[in-house]
Amino acid sequence: MKFTYTGVEVRDLDAAIGFYTKGLGMKLLGRSRIAATGGEVAALKSRGSDQVLELNWYPRRRYRKGSELDHLAFDVGKDDVNAVIDRLAGLGATRARATEVREKYIVGFVKDPDGIWLELYKARR
Amino acid sequence: MKFTYTGVEVRDLDAAIGFYTKGLGMKLLGRSRIAATGGEVAALKSRGSDQVLELNWYPRRRYRKGSELDHLAFDVGKDDVNAVIDRLAGLGATRARATEVREKYIVGFVKDPDGIWLELYKARR
Repeated sequence: MKFTYTGVEVRDLDAAIGFYTKGLGMKLLGRSRIAATGGEVAALKSRGSDQVLELNWYPRRRYRKGSELDHLAFDVGKDDVNAVIDRLAGLGATRARATEVREKYIVGFVKDPDGIWLELYKARR
Repeated sequence: MKFTYTGVEVRDLDAAIGFYTKGLGMKLLGRSRIAATGGEVAALKSRGSDQVLELNWYPRRRYRKGSELDHLAFDVGKDDVNAVIDRLAGLGATRARATEVREKYIVGFVKDPDGIWLELYKARR
């Protein structure tokens, strides 16, 4: 039994693929139509990770803000947290909270173009 | 840059930890209070996976159904999809769709006690 991926819903699949590949360096593994719903799905992965992010698009659905998804988290690795946030802001993300320097991590938050909260963090050396 | 975990919001942290450990075999890595919100957070992981599921609880927040989280997916491995669904139903999950035998996978869906959709799938041999 293994938790293998997280599926989120997006309002514009092309835009979301662009955001997560250009903004967060993810690789598009593939995309396909879903006959049952008339929608489309794409799978993405970060280099060096087995963790898959699935982007789901459905035609004619109202997109509502809810509680279930708290946030998706990204370790920025060698990048700078604020530089990543600037890049994401240029791709349609909204700055959600001031970046904090905590005891062990530097942590920043944005909302992606669909309003999904993203945490960008980096371990302090 | 690496996608490292998914954080969901839950209404009862003890209950959610019980559901994901007993129902889905995840291991509790730890839990801690969040001073800034008065809430609490727990991290869980499946055996043989780096993928972390974070459960976030906040005091006095209304829990609303929204679009952002489509589903969390679990490969049932050697287990039977319907046996897993029966176990989850016994732990407070709701059966969400009839199990389907697709070309490559057997796929079932439940909603967890907070209404989060979970996909349980198994590759066909």
